[in-house]
Amino acid sequence: MVIVMSSPTKPEDLERIVQLAHQRNLQTHISHGEERTIVGLIGGDVRELDTATLGRLPGVERVVRILQPFKLASRAHQPDGGQVTIGCHPSSRRVTIGHTKLAIIAGPCSVEGREMTMQTAQAVREHGGHGLRGGAFKPRTSPYSFQGLGRQGLEYLAEARQATGLPVVTEVPAPEQVGLLCEYADVLQIGARNMQNYPLLQEVGRTDRPVLLKRGMSASVEEWLMAAEYVLSQGNNRVILCERGIRTFETSTRNTLDLSAVAVVKQQSHLPVLVDPSHGTGYADLVPSMSLAAIAAGADGLLLEVHPDPPSALCDGGQSLSFAGYAQLTAGLQAVAAAVGREM
Amino acid sequence: MVIVMSSPTKPEDLERIVQLAHQRNLQTHISHGEERTIVGLIGGDVRELDTATLGRLPGVERVVRILQPFKLASRAHQPDGGQVTIGCHPSSRRVTIGHTKLAIIAGPCSVEGREMTMQTAQAVREHGGHGLRGGAFKPRTSPYSFQGLGRQGLEYLAEARQATGLPVVTEVPAPEQVGLLCEYADVLQIGARNMQNYPLLQEVGRTDRPVLLKRGMSASVEEWLMAAEYVLSQGNNRVILCERGIRTFETSTRNTLDLSAVAVVKQQSHLPVLVDPSHGTGYADLVPSMSLAAIAAGADGLLLEVHPDPPSALCDGGQSLSFAGYAQLTAGLQAVAAAVGREM
Amino acid sequence: MVIVMSSPTKPEDLERIVQLAHQRNLQTHISHGEERTIVGLIGGDVRELDTATLGRLPGVERVVRILQPFKLASRAHQPDGGQVTIGCHPSSRRVTIGHTKLAIIAGPCSVEGREMTMQTAQAVREHGGHGLRGGAFKPRTSPYSFQGLGRQGLEYLAEARQATGLPVVTEVPAPEQVGLLCEYADVLQIGARNMQNYPLLQEVGRTDRPVLLKRGMSASVEEWLMAAEYVLSQGNNRVILCERGIRTFETSTRNTLDLSAVAVVKQQSHLPVLVDPSHGTGYADLVPSMSLAAIAAGADGLLLEVHPDPPSALCDGGQSLSFAGYAQLTAGLQAVAAAVGREM
Amino acid sequence: MVIVMSSPTKPEDLERIVQLAHQRNLQTHISHGEERTIVGLIGGDVRELDTATLGRLPGVERVVRILQPFKLASRAHQPDGGQVTIGCHPSSRRVTIGHTKLAIIAGPCSVEGREMTMQTAQAVREHGGHGLRGGAFKPRTSPYSFQGLGRQGLEYLAEARQATGLPVVTEVPAPEQVGLLCEYADVLQIGARNMQNYPLLQEVGRTDRPVLLKRGMSASVEEWLMAAEYVLSQGNNRVILCERGIRTFETSTRNTLDLSAVAVVKQQSHLPVLVDPSHGTGYADLVPSMSLAAIAAGADGLLLEVHPDPPSALCDGGQSLSFAGYAQLTAGLQAVAAAVGREM
Repeated sequence: MVIVMSSPTKPEDLERIVQLAHQRNLQTHISHGEERTIVGLIGGDVRELDTATLGRLPGVERVVRILQPFKLASRAHQPDGGQVTIGCHPSSRRVTIGHTKLAIIAGPCSVEGREMTMQTAQAVREHGGHGLRGGAFKPRTSPYSFQGLGRQGLEYLAEARQATGLPVVTEVPAPEQVGLLCEYADVLQIGARNMQNYPLLQEVGRTDRPVLLKRGMSASVEEWLMAAEYVLSQGNNRVILCERGIRTFETSTRNTLDLSAVAVVKQQSHLPVLVDPSHGTGYADLVPSMSLAAIAAGADGLLLEVHPDPPSALCDGGQSLSFAGYAQLTAGLQAVAAAVGREM
Repeated sequence: MVIVMSSPTKPEDLERIVQLAHQRNLQTHISHGEERTIVGLIGGDVRELDTATLGRLPGVERVVRILQPFKLASRAHQPDGGQVTIGCHPSSRRVTIGHTKLAIIAGPCSVEGREMTMQTAQAVREHGGHGLRGGAFKPRTSPYSFQGLGRQGLEYLAEARQATGLPVVTEVPAPEQVGLLCEYADVLQIGARNMQNYPLLQEVGRTDRPVLLKRGMSASVEEWLMAAEYVLSQGNNRVILCERGIRTFETSTRNTLDLSAVAVVKQQSHLPVLVDPSHGTGYADLVPSMSLAAIAAGADGLLLEVHPDPPSALCDGGQSLSFAGYAQLTAGLQAVAAAVGREM
Repeated sequence: MVIVMSSPTKPEDLERIVQLAHQRNLQTHISHGEERTIVGLIGGDVRELDTATLGRLPGVERVVRILQPFKLASRAHQPDGGQVTIGCHPSSRRVTIGHTKLAIIAGPCSVEGREMTMQTAQAVREHGGHGLRGGAFKPRTSPYSFQGLGRQGLEYLAEARQATGLPVVTEVPAPEQVGLLCEYADVLQIGARNMQNYPLLQEVGRTDRPVLLKRGMSASVEEWLMAAEYVLSQGNNRVILCERGIRTFETSTRNTLDLSAVAVVKQQSHLPVLVDPSHGTGYADLVPSMSLAAIAAGADGLLLEVHPDPPSALCDGGQSLSFAGYAQLTAGLQAVAAAVGREM
Repeated sequence: MVIVMSSPTKPEDLERIVQLAHQRNLQTHISHGEERTIVGLIGGDVRELDTATLGRLPGVERVVRILQPFKLASRAHQPDGGQVTIGCHPSSRRVTIGHTKLAIIAGPCSVEGREMTMQTAQAVREHGGHGLRGGAFKPRTSPYSFQGLGRQGLEYLAEARQATGLPVVTEVPAPEQVGLLCEYADVLQIGARNMQNYPLLQEVGRTDRPVLLKRGMSASVEEWLMAAEYVLSQGNNRVILCERGIRTFETSTRNTLDLSAVAVVKQQSHLPVLVDPSHGTGYADLVPSMSLAAIAAGADGLLLEVHPDPPSALCDGGQSLSFAGYAQLTAGLQAVAAAVGREM
């Protein structure tokens, strides 16, 4: 932590910083420049200091954090990169994410019924998919929109898993549903709107179930990794990240898919990272090119929306692929995967 | 709802739209322009249609929503503007928000102890405040930061209310805490990170307690009003909005306080709206000018962070006013309030 | 400048930094922390170092700038705050901006004809205005939109000045028009789209004419002050800033008016600052409340769009006030101005 | 154009719209819904109507544009997609952009001297490059930074072209330099900060030289295509687009590279589009993965910064590739290009 003092620096202000540092068992390193005096704080756990509060001390112009605020999520914690294996239910196949082999997790935005779930799972399985996604509890912007089938939807997903062996990835809406979701899901998905729902992060952190953590739509990469830290710090080290687009001024896409975040995460963290080009763009027509781009950028796999009849979907049909579109996409991915040293 | 067809329009695509509309009891109004054919959908509840899904139908270029998606939160629902009275606990004074009289709700970011809570409440009361804010459960970006005193913090707030008569505004972190919070709080605050935590919105919507709904940091005004609609649609019509800054590219402030949102809300909704310049700017030095600006912009009051000793605060001290700063601010507000026809 | 070295730090990488610093006559100050080694660079003109390039040196993790990159625009350069007097043409009244007295500069978005210009100038003058704004050269998003009357428009503005004494503020579109504009204008306006048009900034910097520098729609406050520095560094110290809204995700307003930028500029710079709520919101209905808020926030005046018949305006009529609306606004401003210790 | 009337609709307001439309030779199509009346405007050139001004008419709630505002830049104007051939100087090779074959245009951010320019051009040529980029006039955020060698820099570029046959791409800073630049450059680059510098766009539009139009850092895809329309509407149809990152809240990269914009441009326009991952990310380490992603997303080529010794670069060294890094990148691109049906 570096504290930049206002100019001119008053001795008593400098003294206060030094005392405060010593109270917290930090060493200080003072450097007098021509225009500014700066104080380095070293040792102890400087990560626990609140930069905003230090910035409010008399005579302080600015406080600069030197260390990343996350530890368990950092690359330094696991320099070789990590892998997360999903598929804990007896009927699930095991799939390792963060490996040479890419993971394709696909399915409907929301589970609308038994038939469509089974059909979709079979199509996903047949055309190279490794996991089944589908929402039973759907957070919707409007209280008047379809909110999901709840437990009935989970039953359909379990049945589809039984038939196909695909591990199930589904969203957990609130802390009190974590227990229920653990009965059914192979992977607990934290939606973008819940990325900073800390009670929920802690609750899933207390399970042993893999957690798919979507990036919040206005979360920086640092905040996203801090959200992962919440899960990791509870003892659950099976976190998979998922980039799904950030909110910007651009309106020609629903969100702006931030593929450079994939490369940044690979530098800063050991956690595997997927990309969701369906939410990331909001338009099925853009999903194939963004899927190829995501794999080329280094993503460990994709989260895709697939629906038997997109125009009739009860939720986000505009961004769902048809079975034919999905099959064509996964076929096209093979060559790009191979070109970057990955397999399907 | 207006559907813009691709050019050239195929008769079968147009026909499909018309049939689909009739299945949902909507009338269609087709207009053939020189470059595009457009279809207006009228009647029924067009608000329930998903624009993204319609946009995926073959031959559709774009779908344009004509009506605002919210109903209960709309100005049309209550054209004269609404008021929300807070202070249900026996020891609380009643305060009406959305009235000529402005509401000043102030207190520490987090309740750190008994003494500081009592002192702050007295200072708030003495210098023109009408409510006491303070967090017992603190959502923090880092799992290693102070997370609040929990129930003990609520006890201190209740004791401060007993002594000062100030109604207590405090954040509810998760659906399962709503019951506990209702025992202690006069107003249930929904934090910015939880603005789209729908299970939580529904849970507070099922109480009769006033809800202070902070704007999410990347939420549009429309999404904010839709979040209010979640609460209202459960039967709780005592929603107070609070603008607290949005996330932009600018880094000289913590957030960008969007005061024009106050004016937009006043046009589109009947809900009262407060402004939180402490979170909105992140710097105590900017709070006084932004407080004056907020009142001049038409806000119904302020949510302010005040602390006995800001540099020693355990949370967000950088944006907290000292007692002296707070007293000076409220004194200065009088003249601006009067200038725009309001009182303190 | 602080250089954070990667961990572990190689001695040769540290040595390279030290040598490079000494070549540029900078002192180094090395601090070995538990997790990172940091190097402070002191003296010489560290402002000229390129942080991105230093960040590319082997073994460097990150580079942090300590000093603000601007000098002449900084508050430290002129701690008491500056004033700029406009009105150099013989027929102009002198108006000082950055003074207790607020400056109201109003007029049509574009000069559409002689009659409307004269009428508008008279209305502006009659209801408290101090300057006349109007575009003769209009930058428009579409090449098919009205682009302004050019020199003819300047003639009309000059005639209106002759009749009313109002100094003329008008936009200069390109370096080669600076000479022409100096013949007619009291103040050279740099539009938001040209805020980083450096040849243009340098050209107006070589004149002695006051420059109204609008903030670019995605410019940080720091970049805005650096743009001012371009003008100031050419010897022209008569720069007036103008906040006009920034681009964000919010679509209920045309831009997001960033009033906290006014307070930040007042802290960091001595330059006077106006606010343009017409462009800042894009809707005439929002202009009155945002005008009051701007003055309450500490702005030195306003830039307003006024038109004899807004719905018939050739450009941006949606954000222009009618004469009646303008008169009502300036009347209402009096009380707020007085409340914050300013006069009209 | 669709005009949504306020509710309830007054007959005189509706009548005014109809009359105004007829004056402009537009037909009207009125549709009375249950909650709103809407008016469709058809025919004539509705593109020339100003939506903001119409929105200000009494009784109008909102105006919705149905047609894209650009014509010459639209896909409809040239449904098969366009190509632009560069290399007009006698010593240049011809390169077609927008073809199966990808275009790699590389070189230093700024031309710093003869030697480094020649070396870089040779490295670019040797490792698969098709064009040489380099700035002679450098727009820099700080007036104290290196601003380029000017005409001397152009001479070095010409000499490097002579030696390698690589067409030269260089930035034109202002309208009055267009003549000079045409003497030296094969392609006139419009920098991001100048994307809405309309006098400059018109001036390059009056030449027959290919124009590389970088996206403004806060420009929507629509505004970018409107900027292209400015060039095209002057008669120069040789416009090449270049995505270079947009400004968002994310700070781990310099800009957010918006690769979905490539796919959107391919849908909406016939213009070829390159990607600049050097400016787009700001970090050389991120350039390789983003280059692969750009090609996978459908870009027609890349604009890369390459420097003989990045840490010593006078400008943006942090984002420049070394020769070795560049060679490795172009080698790696081959497989991805082939995977998406392109060649190097």
